[in-house]
Amino acid sequence: MVNLEVKTSVNSYPIYVDENIRHQTKHFLPKKYSVIHIVTDKRVADLYLDDLKESLEGHPHVFHSIIEEGEKSKCVADFEYLHTRSIQFGLDRESLVIALGGGVVGDLAGFVAATYMRGIDYIQVPTTILAHDSSVGGKVAINHALGKNLIGSFYPPEAVIYDVQTLQTLPAKEVRSGYAEIVKEALIADKGLFDNIMQTKLSQVTNDTLKDHIFRGIKIKTHFVQADEKEKGIRAHLNFGHTLGHALEAKYGYGELAHGEAVAIGMLFAMEVSNTIYSKNLPVELLYKWLKDNGFPLLIKEINIDSLFNQMKLDKKVVNNQIQLVLLKDIGNPVTLELSDEDLQNYLETFINKMTKI
Amino acid sequence: MVNLEVKTSVNSYPIYVDENIRHQTKHFLPKKYSVIHIVTDKRVADLYLDDLKESLEGHPHVFHSIIEEGEKSKCVADFEYLHTRSIQFGLDRESLVIALGGGVVGDLAGFVAATYMRGIDYIQVPTTILAHDSSVGGKVAINHALGKNLIGSFYPPEAVIYDVQTLQTLPAKEVRSGYAEIVKEALIADKGLFDNIMQTKLSQVTNDTLKDHIFRGIKIKTHFVQADEKEKGIRAHLNFGHTLGHALEAKYGYGELAHGEAVAIGMLFAMEVSNTIYSKNLPVELLYKWLKDNGFPLLIKEINIDSLFNQMKLDKKVVNNQIQLVLLKDIGNPVTLELSDEDLQNYLETFINKMTKI
Repeated sequence: MVNLEVKTSVNSYPIYVDENIRHQTKHFLPKKYSVIHIVTDKRVADLYLDDLKESLEGHPHVFHSIIEEGEKSKCVADFEYLHTRSIQFGLDRESLVIALGGGVVGDLAGFVAATYMRGIDYIQVPTTILAHDSSVGGKVAINHALGKNLIGSFYPPEAVIYDVQTLQTLPAKEVRSGYAEIVKEALIADKGLFDNIMQTKLSQVTNDTLKDHIFRGIKIKTHFVQADEKEKGIRAHLNFGHTLGHALEAKYGYGELAHGEAVAIGMLFAMEVSNTIYSKNLPVELLYKWLKDNGFPLLIKEINIDSLFNQMKLDKKVVNNQIQLVLLKDIGNPVTLELSDEDLQNYLETFINKMTKI
Repeated sequence: MVNLEVKTSVNSYPIYVDENIRHQTKHFLPKKYSVIHIVTDKRVADLYLDDLKESLEGHPHVFHSIIEEGEKSKCVADFEYLHTRSIQFGLDRESLVIALGGGVVGDLAGFVAATYMRGIDYIQVPTTILAHDSSVGGKVAINHALGKNLIGSFYPPEAVIYDVQTLQTLPAKEVRSGYAEIVKEALIADKGLFDNIMQTKLSQVTNDTLKDHIFRGIKIKTHFVQADEKEKGIRAHLNFGHTLGHALEAKYGYGELAHGEAVAIGMLFAMEVSNTIYSKNLPVELLYKWLKDNGFPLLIKEINIDSLFNQMKLDKKVVNNQIQLVLLKDIGNPVTLELSDEDLQNYLETFINKMTKI
């Protein structure tokens, strides 16, 4: 088993990564809890809820709630529903929430824990590759009809228990979505990892490679989170590819394009802009080819540039109405640049034209 | 002007107390903000919103939202509404929320600020005596249908600007409600303040006395908050009178009995139990007489003891299903005691019988 310790302003928590550790959950709990409330979604419940409950056998008060799959569950109604369930199950300030699932479950259950009686403990048990990103760093949130993750908190978990065995059941789309975030981490911090991934065929990835890539991704994420927990500075570099990515996700209605698939397009955009502004020669073509070979949807159809631009301006990183775009001076050397509306619109137009013609 | 500095784990904020300082709000802002969103209620808007907006004159982006008066606004729907308004007004991470009003406005607007884009700055401008308590300490929340303040955060403001002049327009019920919390602070920490209040007739209280009492109350509150920000230990002593108080409030439907009026009855109960358990002679009769003389409603009609008891068990301070009651070994010497259900039910029955017969 590999593990890491993340230090935050309010606690310090371990991340465990290994095969089949979901069966030992009880041993990873940092203390005794009065009541445990497992939150999961329908797909994951069918696969792993029994395993998790069995691993907590002997605890007298273990309950669970099952939400619908998908981004639409990160809403105010489900947030309130899980509070209601927590009250009904008798959770108090010495109780625990366990988020068993992907990013949606982690963000939603984490935000419920962050706000239940002004905050109780929670543990992340991620079951997707993408969740290697969202489960580390303590950013929890729900969506607002007008934008993603607009309602939330910085609230770190007490532990992350990552059973890579659960990644074997992921659909190809989810594998792609998760890998896009590892590519992002590689691009902002680790050229070796980037080169390695570019030689990996996702449909044939082995468990050992997966474990290695995920662990290296988490290490990069952890580095940025520890350096800047509340996202006042360099943590924003983790947003590489996300300004356009989030806007595409919002426009394509949360789901049609998976999060990482949208971020992949956003990364191509940010690399193109970087090449133009800094006269660089970042490997856009190489990344484009790898994405294409691995089945990423890259053709943006019927997109309205004005509406996409307006959506980008709703990004949480907008300051004084100016978009802060994360760019690369080189692989492993990210910078944040404030772009004028006019420049951004031009770059966007050039990029979309290029993408629709390839 | 008197002022205090409160140190928390994440910031340090000033509390200013004086007459007419609402007109100088601009000078108390700790930094420049991109957009300012004032949240207030209908009653307070009519009285002081214009003053506050004038005091911010020159700022290009000042907006406001007006909610309904009363506890019912501390709900998920209003929480979401204020997020929507914040997005529509273009608030970003460098923006400010100002809570202009009593505890309801402060708790709700504070919780919106705590969760908007994972937390932006907010400032409390309290306009009730009761809010001397809620505006200090960073506890923000909304209610759940099953219990008060169950959804919230610990999230300190950037400043508290307390204009005691605004207290002149308070209805008598609100004066009573606020004073009950000052009496509570006196009972757990300052016998001199308690004696002083027992000689004060609320209908004739002068501005100077009010300023003195509020400032001493805030000092006590600040002491407990700084010693124990996240309410793991002695901060719970501020809950004196609140276990029964909250249950009475819930049973009487948030509003019929004002918060402080309910706490007043809760304090009499806690003092009676203290006298019994510790064989003390705390001045219950003196407090009872003062409350009665000042118009506090003390007769509990048609109360079902079982249902009241069940409501008490929903309290956030319940641990492992046992109620933690704050008692007094003496004035200024509070303790927390875990009570068995049976004992608590007996004490409650004795107390209710006594109160309905007086």
